[in-house]
Amino acid sequence: MLGVGIIGAGLMGTTHARILGAAVSGAEVVAVSDALRESAERVAAEVGVETIYADGLELIADPRVDAVVIASPAVTHEPFTLACLEAGKPVLCEKPLAISAAASLRIVEAEAALGRRLVTVGFMRRFDPGYVDLKAQLDAGAVGRPLLVHCAHRNPHVHPHFDSAMIITDTAVHEIDITRWLLDQEIVRATVFTPRPTSEAPAGLRDPQLIIFETEDGLLVDVEAFVNARYGYDIRCEVVGEAGTIELLSPSTVALRSANAEALAIPRTFPERFGVAYLHELQSWIAAIERGEEAPGASAWDGYAAAAVSEAAVESLETGRPVDVTLGTRAATIAAR
Amino acid sequence: MLGVGIIGAGLMGTTHARILGAAVSGAEVVAVSDALRESAERVAAEVGVETIYADGLELIADPRVDAVVIASPAVTHEPFTLACLEAGKPVLCEKPLAISAAASLRIVEAEAALGRRLVTVGFMRRFDPGYVDLKAQLDAGAVGRPLLVHCAHRNPHVHPHFDSAMIITDTAVHEIDITRWLLDQEIVRATVFTPRPTSEAPAGLRDPQLIIFETEDGLLVDVEAFVNARYGYDIRCEVVGEAGTIELLSPSTVALRSANAEALAIPRTFPERFGVAYLHELQSWIAAIERGEEAPGASAWDGYAAAAVSEAAVESLETGRPVDVTLGTRAATIAAR
Amino acid sequence: MLGVGIIGAGLMGTTHARILGAAVSGAEVVAVSDALRESAERVAAEVGVETIYADGLELIADPRVDAVVIASPAVTHEPFTLACLEAGKPVLCEKPLAISAAASLRIVEAEAALGRRLVTVGFMRRFDPGYVDLKAQLDAGAVGRPLLVHCAHRNPHVHPHFDSAMIITDTAVHEIDITRWLLDQEIVRATVFTPRPTSEAPAGLRDPQLIIFETEDGLLVDVEAFVNARYGYDIRCEVVGEAGTIELLSPSTVALRSANAEALAIPRTFPERFGVAYLHELQSWIAAIERGEEAPGASAWDGYAAAAVSEAAVESLETGRPVDVTLGTRAATIAAR
Amino acid sequence: MLGVGIIGAGLMGTTHARILGAAVSGAEVVAVSDALRESAERVAAEVGVETIYADGLELIADPRVDAVVIASPAVTHEPFTLACLEAGKPVLCEKPLAISAAASLRIVEAEAALGRRLVTVGFMRRFDPGYVDLKAQLDAGAVGRPLLVHCAHRNPHVHPHFDSAMIITDTAVHEIDITRWLLDQEIVRATVFTPRPTSEAPAGLRDPQLIIFETEDGLLVDVEAFVNARYGYDIRCEVVGEAGTIELLSPSTVALRSANAEALAIPRTFPERFGVAYLHELQSWIAAIERGEEAPGASAWDGYAAAAVSEAAVESLETGRPVDVTLGTRAATIAAR
Repeated sequence: MLGVGIIGAGLMGTTHARILGAAVSGAEVVAVSDALRESAERVAAEVGVETIYADGLELIADPRVDAVVIASPAVTHEPFTLACLEAGKPVLCEKPLAISAAASLRIVEAEAALGRRLVTVGFMRRFDPGYVDLKAQLDAGAVGRPLLVHCAHRNPHVHPHFDSAMIITDTAVHEIDITRWLLDQEIVRATVFTPRPTSEAPAGLRDPQLIIFETEDGLLVDVEAFVNARYGYDIRCEVVGEAGTIELLSPSTVALRSANAEALAIPRTFPERFGVAYLHELQSWIAAIERGEEAPGASAWDGYAAAAVSEAAVESLETGRPVDVTLGTRAATIAAR
Repeated sequence: MLGVGIIGAGLMGTTHARILGAAVSGAEVVAVSDALRESAERVAAEVGVETIYADGLELIADPRVDAVVIASPAVTHEPFTLACLEAGKPVLCEKPLAISAAASLRIVEAEAALGRRLVTVGFMRRFDPGYVDLKAQLDAGAVGRPLLVHCAHRNPHVHPHFDSAMIITDTAVHEIDITRWLLDQEIVRATVFTPRPTSEAPAGLRDPQLIIFETEDGLLVDVEAFVNARYGYDIRCEVVGEAGTIELLSPSTVALRSANAEALAIPRTFPERFGVAYLHELQSWIAAIERGEEAPGASAWDGYAAAAVSEAAVESLETGRPVDVTLGTRAATIAAR
Repeated sequence: MLGVGIIGAGLMGTTHARILGAAVSGAEVVAVSDALRESAERVAAEVGVETIYADGLELIADPRVDAVVIASPAVTHEPFTLACLEAGKPVLCEKPLAISAAASLRIVEAEAALGRRLVTVGFMRRFDPGYVDLKAQLDAGAVGRPLLVHCAHRNPHVHPHFDSAMIITDTAVHEIDITRWLLDQEIVRATVFTPRPTSEAPAGLRDPQLIIFETEDGLLVDVEAFVNARYGYDIRCEVVGEAGTIELLSPSTVALRSANAEALAIPRTFPERFGVAYLHELQSWIAAIERGEEAPGASAWDGYAAAAVSEAAVESLETGRPVDVTLGTRAATIAAR
Repeated sequence: MLGVGIIGAGLMGTTHARILGAAVSGAEVVAVSDALRESAERVAAEVGVETIYADGLELIADPRVDAVVIASPAVTHEPFTLACLEAGKPVLCEKPLAISAAASLRIVEAEAALGRRLVTVGFMRRFDPGYVDLKAQLDAGAVGRPLLVHCAHRNPHVHPHFDSAMIITDTAVHEIDITRWLLDQEIVRATVFTPRPTSEAPAGLRDPQLIIFETEDGLLVDVEAFVNARYGYDIRCEVVGEAGTIELLSPSTVALRSANAEALAIPRTFPERFGVAYLHELQSWIAAIERGEEAPGASAWDGYAAAAVSEAAVESLETGRPVDVTLGTRAATIAAR
């Protein structure tokens, strides 16, 4: 039974703690930390844990903690992840890996220096059954070599402090990771287009955005990122290959026929849409640690690449021009797979 | 240019007159008749016709009338159809062909005595692109030999004089015809089940009904006939074969994503659902007459068989027992195809 | 950590052991038994268990076994379940609960005498996300009061010893349970129709079957049970209410467009279709035991009712007539809900 | 009965002649012309016409010709259309209206000088039931104000002389017209991205292309134009508004379940996909002429705007930069609507 410590008792930390406590085999939550004691206590009570730390570093040092989940504010990800590396403990860090590409690269290099893969970045979509099936069919050659990927990422609404750059760094970053994973190659350039913003967005927010990514092999990925889409939490992805296309379906289970329409429900929130992905992410992470294997999720390099591509896209958003992505070499790092 | 006379200026007569006037090549409406002069005048004015008759027999006798559409009350279908046969004029008679199987058989026999196929019964579904595609795939062997057909026929509501037997004779009769056509064989037995009626139906109306038909080769057809289904006009059909199934889709053209649902419109009325079928029915009827060929729609025999099966089903509804269909022999008739 | 013993190391026992070992929180497999030692050893090795019993009764008696899963041949279900009751241990018994309605009723009565709900029957569909959503919408009144349920249960093929009665007792029994659960009422009559059998079935097998069930409130359920459907493992269910219908969708996650078709995969096997249901069934069973609550799955009474309805349907298959279901009174039993 | 003359007896001319001859009310084909006498004779024979001209100008001059369909090579569109204007005869000209924006503008100006709308451009999609429904829902406010349009235009293959610019001028031009029509505004800028070309395309063909259009109100339209998509003729369009999205569905009528998949057919050719649109285009054109009304299809201005946008996109394809569209003012022209 693996002892897991949870750093950060906000929405994501609570979600992870609940899943670990109620639905994952082989692990138990043994400690919770949060800068806000109340939050830590609430989560600890819910999952039946007694050990609470104010400081994540203390939690990492606790000998009963075999593995760490980091779900605290982004600015703390780098120090906590580095502390886990130092302690030699596997860590699942919520995205982003760090607050910049440069900071993410420091983690990549620290892990490389250690010589052991310990860092997993919480890009949970890699565990969504839809994306998994899509990649399996793509890799099996069902549509030949890929050429284009069309994506849409729609949130019904966002909190009031969300700004235009976060539509890339917090929202489209999921598409950056998942298309890198689907296509198995790096993104090398980003161009951002912004239409007239929706009148539903706060003044000044450039929402939606249409982002064009180009990959090292010359493939194109277009992403509509729209965080005030109102109608639902809707994630779409179609890969176009030389012989056909594969498209993610909405995860509806029933059709309701009433009032002159046949209706399929669209999720309202990301936990509703990706609940199964979070479960599989955690279960496979725990199972890999138990077996002494590398965790199957996104690596530190993946977290770094996502940050580097995001930064290029943000620069394109600000300048209106295509911006090349600058990536360090993988040579100095542990192979990502 | 073929001159067409329309007998009956109600909903169906008006529908046919409009289509002939505005969307069919090779024909023009030259006369309209209705027992109610006002109705005849309204339709005549709409399609730009001057000749109006009070009596359908006069219309049939008019030498400018090359072909006749009968859309008057069911009780008049037999005399008007027989008059068309006597006059040697092609006739498209709305269903039912006559008010009973016995009366329908008289028409079959009169046409056989004449020795020429002149009668077409207005089972328009045979011209619906969906049913046409379904039959084409079935006949091409896409699912092997058929075993079962599942049907649902749902109307949002019916007029207040609709009674329990009419759910068979007016509603399910379409499924009787279309499954005979799809399977290319006769129905030989009917069993009617009635659940607790919907509280939306008038007291005494046994709505919905579940009807099981057995065919001469031992296939089964189940039909849900539900005339107060409220939510829309919804027609469903799935043929189950030895290697797969083929199912009719709802004829939606767009998907609307809003308010946490993806919605496909369901038609509200039968003209909305089967407008294209009525058009194709009339165009192919006119084209066949022009070429001197047999019309491709349901024959007098088909109208008779539908009536005979309906009568067996009504008897089952009344007695609660399976009832065998008694059919005359085709030997005495013109081959249906 | 709850200790679970698995009786029966065939397909279902192995499935349950794997899920308990790799994906369920709060439980561990502590013992396995099978009449065939080899099978027991294989499963035990796979989930890392050392204790193997030849006899299920010994396993039940093992003090480390807190709860029991019975997945041995049907004939053994009654004695093992009764032994669990005697030992006061929660038991999840694969369907059928026993080999007859009479035997099932003995278990109902034994449990009632004990005065504690310990028996759960493995009707896993109650945990399938699709059926759960369907029931939630139905119970929320999305389509008004239900009137009819249309079901299809299609297996690609069955083993050579499958006989016509088993199409009811092994196959349609799932629809018997799930429609009782969806509608929250008993089935009181069964009528079986059989079309010309598929030529893909062995001679003598009456496959497919069309079964009509009537419930105590007069609702109708029709079930197509087809065990040589070849094209896939396909489960369909549509509930028709007074204001609309709710229909189970196939659990596809992606659409493949290639070769002039858009294709959604259909499962090949029941574990593929209901894998998530098995997981939720086990997780919720374990969680309920841990919390000292009643397990949420099908009760002994449900197992008994399914057997009684199956027997009526088998009699109808043999006689060709509608057959009433004879149910004992619930009065003498623990409330099923 | 309107007399129609067909100029050009190739694929499109033949298609129009057949539809006019067999399925349109109120018109008859009275003359056919083609530079290749054989082609003209073949079409004339098929629709039962005796009058054949080698020169389209003679056909236009024939007093029995009330209206003209131009389906000859693009280079001839300008002179024939101008001749129709001179003769005061309504003309339906296949796209493109002329071989350049400048030439198209000359037609716009000639028609404006005449002071009567006589020119219709054959952008048939405006009559496709799907696009019509999409626009109706959009205009009814179903998704609020539009922000983005995502389009894909996929052909299975093209003839060997197709070049990279034609992917814009012959293929994406349909999206240029239909999105101008859907959004009711002009496109003002085009940016073309090209991924690694498909290996199925001839060397040198930049296929597929991803084109971003910006409109006068700042909306964005992205178009994947892919002419060697192999798997089918597939047209997709989704309009994203402030409150939801509306998406065109594939026009399938049946679902085939076989071999572990549920499959919906995808058309193979554009006549299969847009056959109904061609019929409605012609029927509504004839009906408008008969009633002395303006034809409802694309105007000369629409043809000009499509050409001007195409030219900007071709320049972007060649230069790799965004290119602004230069449009004359509508002031000098007849109002397009």
